[in-house]
Amino acid sequence: MDEWLQARVNVLRGRVAGFKVGWPLLLRAGIDRVYNIFSRLEGLRVLDLKLADIGHVMRLVLEDIVDAFDAVIAHAFVGVEGALDELSEFLSERGARLILVYSMSHPGARATLDTCRDVVDKVVQRVKPWGLVVPATRPEVIREARGRYPDIVLVSPGVGAQGAEPGSAICAGADYEIIGRAIAWADDPVLSLRTLAERGVEKLRECIMGKR
Amino acid sequence: MDEWLQARVNVLRGRVAGFKVGWPLLLRAGIDRVYNIFSRLEGLRVLDLKLADIGHVMRLVLEDIVDAFDAVIAHAFVGVEGALDELSEFLSERGARLILVYSMSHPGARATLDTCRDVVDKVVQRVKPWGLVVPATRPEVIREARGRYPDIVLVSPGVGAQGAEPGSAICAGADYEIIGRAIAWADDPVLSLRTLAERGVEKLRECIMGKR
Repeated sequence: MDEWLQARVNVLRGRVAGFKVGWPLLLRAGIDRVYNIFSRLEGLRVLDLKLADIGHVMRLVLEDIVDAFDAVIAHAFVGVEGALDELSEFLSERGARLILVYSMSHPGARATLDTCRDVVDKVVQRVKPWGLVVPATRPEVIREARGRYPDIVLVSPGVGAQGAEPGSAICAGADYEIIGRAIAWADDPVLSLRTLAERGVEKLRECIMGKR
Repeated sequence: MDEWLQARVNVLRGRVAGFKVGWPLLLRAGIDRVYNIFSRLEGLRVLDLKLADIGHVMRLVLEDIVDAFDAVIAHAFVGVEGALDELSEFLSERGARLILVYSMSHPGARATLDTCRDVVDKVVQRVKPWGLVVPATRPEVIREARGRYPDIVLVSPGVGAQGAEPGSAICAGADYEIIGRAIAWADDPVLSLRTLAERGVEKLRECIMGKR
């Protein structure tokens, strides 16, 4: 696991805008190993723990790992008082940025996060996060978020294995597209990245032409 | 850490109805250590990861640890299709039960989870979890959940450090009260447990008298 992780990072660093690390990797590689690898990396390093707990617990989770990352993902719907207010303050002290989940890439998010969009928007407006997670699988949600929050960074998962075409989220207004399995689990990650990037460039060309 | 954990578990086993393990402990002790300790324990063993991700990620997180536990906590608001439907199926295969977060103990949950109660209820009715998390700090939410879901097990955190009195959640209709820091971090956990249990019995006596 450790060798696999270091090898993947070595071939991808410099070729991608950044890395997103989630629970499955953090659990299996362990805090120390993840800290050692990611604290030395350039680019945007996002810790995607989808935190959704009381402030006290979120701080405990992050304490020994946050300094290796530039930003942390938490759920907006966990609310402000006693949760995101404490997380926000903690991240400021540690020099890390907050990214809130605006919506998600799976179909089930429509009947929950998207139905309660007003509640999510109120939290975003109060907490003023650096970034928002918007689903590449649903470009209309990206367009809405971009319209409402012109100055917030939009990171968009769902490209590749989950079905969104490379370039489609950026075309809809996102700043970053996140590709997980289609690169991280590929036999040849650099080849997969190159193929996906070429398709992305093609898509963006169409996108720009379409908007003229 | 390992010795501390084993010692706490050793003095508390048999004196409590079960144990709840969250991310801070799992991250620091590691999967193998937590698996070894909790797979051998009697009582209700709850893995409280407050999962709120797509099904694929939740399964990856649980794969190597779920067999040491009886139940797993996930957020209802993450939604059904592509998330809780897959988690539910995975847990059935592995013989573990699902507990969904109905509301939480911090004040910020009022403006989010409680405001979107209809959405949460729809998810609960579709997924039919074994249990629900209800906040001991807000007994009116416990009474509502008990009224709507007479056959679902209600587990209630927030007793002790977060301010709820022992016995108050059970008085309002919960099945289990969860005490975290006030026992787990106490200098003498057995003494703290005994003191809290005595206050709980006193509270329940008042509760029963009040209902006559």
